Amino acid sequence: MQKLVVVSGIAAVLFAAAAAAAVKPETAIHYRQSVYTMIGWNFGPMVGMIKDKTPWDQADFAKRAERISQLAPQLLEGFPDGSDKGAETEAKADIWKNMDDFKAKMNDLVRESKALADIAKAGDEAKTREQFKKTAGACKSCHDKYRNEE
Amino acid sequence: MQKLVVVSGIAAVLFAAAAAAAVKPETAIHYRQSVYTMIGWNFGPMVGMIKDKTPWDQADFAKRAERISQLAPQLLEGFPDGSDKGAETEAKADIWKNMDDFKAKMNDLVRESKALADIAKAGDEAKTREQFKKTAGACKSCHDKYRNEE
Repeated sequence: MQKLVVVSGIAAVLFAAAAAAAVKPETAIHYRQSVYTMIGWNFGPMVGMIKDKTPWDQADFAKRAERISQLAPQLLEGFPDGSDKGAETEAKADIWKNMDDFKAKMNDLVRESKALADIAKAGDEAKTREQFKKTAGACKSCHDKYRNEE
Repeated sequence: MQKLVVVSGIAAVLFAAAAAAAVKPETAIHYRQSVYTMIGWNFGPMVGMIKDKTPWDQADFAKRAERISQLAPQLLEGFPDGSDKGAETEAKADIWKNMDDFKAKMNDLVRESKALADIAKAGDEAKTREQFKKTAGACKSCHDKYRNEE
């Protein structure tokens, strides 16, 4: 009985792994593009404030920074093995050849966007503007190396 | 000078309103579909656990419930006036004819998904399963009335 439970436990783990592996490349591509779309939806108005095209609104900026800090850690799972193709994607195949470096860049974004959310919430405009540059820099650093820009 | 500042302030508010209104329908449609895609990405594995197709994993379930509770309040801004068309969309035009009812249904989802995140985090599987039904019910209630299912 003990043995059966163990075997059943192993089977369950394998089944879960198989289920996770069963995500189709096009589904992962669609998912990660959705995360980027949501980040961009919030990033746009922040850039407008940073460039003084719209009035500075600390509360709105902080709300959007908080959202991006929640979205950023959800990007990486959209890049499973094999999802370099399967649908139209701007992701370069180099990502999967340099996954450790790609993960490090994703971690940079997670860290900087979390700092931005915290600083924006604290309420100092100058510090918020400064940390925004670092966050945008984390975006750019990864795009420069791993994104086929249109 | 005082007057100039006031006028300038009003101009800024008007400009911000114009900028907000300037979101193209297709951009809003693409945005809201992205939020739904992210919700679905997390909802799928939760349904797998609920239906016992994959092993129950309270921590994973709680993580996904937390994400959905953060995403749900971001849906409504994807339905601005005029975004009933402009790109392929499953949203029925009835949404904009019954915006108060649509908002109420969105609030139901926000409330139930927040409760699900809290209950799942607390760790009781039976209570989590029970609250999942209510959350899924909030999804269905809105889809039945306002979504053109494929």
